[in-house]
Amino acid sequence: MGKVEIVLNSLPMSGGDGPNSYSKNSHLQRRTTSLLKETIDKLILEKLNAKTLISDSNTFHIADLGCATGPNTFFLVDDIIKSVETSLRKSNSSKPEFLVFFNDLPHNDFNTLFTSLPQHRSYFAVGVPGSFYDRVLPQSSVHMVVTVGATHWLSSVPKEVLDKTSKAWNKGKVHYSNAAEEVVKAYRDQFGRDMEKFLEARAKEIVSGGLLVVGMCGIPKGMPFSNLADSIMYKSMADVLTQMQSQGLISEEHVDTFNIPIYSASPEEVTVLVERNGCFTVESMELMDPTAWRLKRPMNVEDVRHWMVCIKATMGSLFINHFGEHLLDVVFDRLTAKLVGLTEKIESSYREKVMLFFALQRK
Amino acid sequence: MGKVEIVLNSLPMSGGDGPNSYSKNSHLQRRTTSLLKETIDKLILEKLNAKTLISDSNTFHIADLGCATGPNTFFLVDDIIKSVETSLRKSNSSKPEFLVFFNDLPHNDFNTLFTSLPQHRSYFAVGVPGSFYDRVLPQSSVHMVVTVGATHWLSSVPKEVLDKTSKAWNKGKVHYSNAAEEVVKAYRDQFGRDMEKFLEARAKEIVSGGLLVVGMCGIPKGMPFSNLADSIMYKSMADVLTQMQSQGLISEEHVDTFNIPIYSASPEEVTVLVERNGCFTVESMELMDPTAWRLKRPMNVEDVRHWMVCIKATMGSLFINHFGEHLLDVVFDRLTAKLVGLTEKIESSYREKVMLFFALQRK
Repeated sequence: MGKVEIVLNSLPMSGGDGPNSYSKNSHLQRRTTSLLKETIDKLILEKLNAKTLISDSNTFHIADLGCATGPNTFFLVDDIIKSVETSLRKSNSSKPEFLVFFNDLPHNDFNTLFTSLPQHRSYFAVGVPGSFYDRVLPQSSVHMVVTVGATHWLSSVPKEVLDKTSKAWNKGKVHYSNAAEEVVKAYRDQFGRDMEKFLEARAKEIVSGGLLVVGMCGIPKGMPFSNLADSIMYKSMADVLTQMQSQGLISEEHVDTFNIPIYSASPEEVTVLVERNGCFTVESMELMDPTAWRLKRPMNVEDVRHWMVCIKATMGSLFINHFGEHLLDVVFDRLTAKLVGLTEKIESSYREKVMLFFALQRK
Repeated sequence: MGKVEIVLNSLPMSGGDGPNSYSKNSHLQRRTTSLLKETIDKLILEKLNAKTLISDSNTFHIADLGCATGPNTFFLVDDIIKSVETSLRKSNSSKPEFLVFFNDLPHNDFNTLFTSLPQHRSYFAVGVPGSFYDRVLPQSSVHMVVTVGATHWLSSVPKEVLDKTSKAWNKGKVHYSNAAEEVVKAYRDQFGRDMEKFLEARAKEIVSGGLLVVGMCGIPKGMPFSNLADSIMYKSMADVLTQMQSQGLISEEHVDTFNIPIYSASPEEVTVLVERNGCFTVESMELMDPTAWRLKRPMNVEDVRHWMVCIKATMGSLFINHFGEHLLDVVFDRLTAKLVGLTEKIESSYREKVMLFFALQRK
């Protein structure tokens, strides 16, 4: 397989603050964060005993795992701090200090994150470079951990999917959507192993009584991924790559070894993993509709373009790393053109309960 | 004054890992760190009750303030961790976890710092963007703070020095060396205010019994700065800039408003500031010889070149910010050429006890 066998877990969101950057193109993620605000607020007020948790230090520690470059992480953190302050006021506690750990992969653009931190913020900010599938913080060092839009990224493409001799060899596709059952299983197993490591690490880092809040790609139990709108995007991506291959722009091997390591989990399978871990109680486990905020009107060309700009900002590094920077725009221009012709199909596909939200409390 | 009135405290060391970078040109700083190793080791073993300090959390917290981009900070941190581990072994304590806060200004190249972190390190690493003249960490959150080669950088050029109507107007010079008494006083007062804020912030952040260890530019009490080798460099810099002005390469105003905000303190004046702060006991306060490791041989052209490469890596941002990137090489090429002709004068100037080392314990 040689140089195309790349471990994809080291690829961050697009850095900087230019027109293709994550920081300028993460409105969809912002909507997700807003959607979660109310739920997180309720959790903090009802489940988190902030007063007791910080009785020793009078400092409340928050971690955002997979924070990218901002600004969504700043909105999220602000919301959490306001809720914790409200909770503490209700219990007549003195005003605490806040420390926020902003975590992402070591190649994330922390320079952009740090220089765009709100100037008048009410917390101490630190950056934590490292994969959240391993430990990133000391034992019992954090009271609340959030991660939004990050844990559907697998630590790597399942290795069977890249193995020509395996039944899970995913030739001509970029995802497990519409793929052989063996491919689906390889992705599912990888997610299981990753989530196991994720929960193990968080169980060490979060204090007893602390909260772990996760928002990620989800899917109702038993629904095939091919029902989802994203399935159309992945299919179109594969079509674009195959076309580029036939035009000699990229090699067959490059196409066959390109897979997007994103997995959509059902509440039921996460529940099993949490129970197996044994260190957390489930306080919330539900599928949400990330499109609930949208005006109910037909999808237009601008919607598709906007969607693709966001996808490019989050997945761009994957393409650059595999095919080279010079082909990024070609791929996305062709993909956008293709999807513009598929708006009706996208509209009629399942787009409602595709965000999995869960909140766990450390026993 | 308009746009030449720049607050200089937001200028970091040169980023990246290219030929002009700090990370590739900080050998002199590394020598300083080595020189301190033994002293710091002794302090930790004799003064720091690590076992008691971490009895609650079993995590030892270290901060390096003004860490730049590595690798010196990694050597320093490794040395400290080894000493703390030795100390804990002696008191039969269980192995703790370590959390290291790497602090520098928000524009520091944290991306280079993070991607060059040792892979097999024995600590959790976080980056802390912010000026250490303000609070950067929560209250009572750290057991040991070190800062080497950073606190001689003032938070800004003293404003009187930039004021044409002031007696401290420092026309035609780049430093208080050989300058009017009013200029010296303006620098001294600025250092006093900065160190006051530095100690105030650290007193809040360091736990009772914790250590604050500082290595910075020093000078024996009462010695005029003009006795020092660095004085020749500053004088030569001013000469180069004046020459460039006469050649129309830079404006008179740009030359007159360029000042390097570095101050060399005596043990006696720091002692007064520490006593005024009142939160620390002085465990060590001494001048050291940073050239002690050198072979006692005449200075040659290569020594001067090497010195200038290091100075360029640490002060380059100052020049770029004031004169523009296009003039950086011109300035340093001319400066190097000038100093090559002055090796005898440099050799005969005072270069021995010009590093101030002090260690304070939080009461």
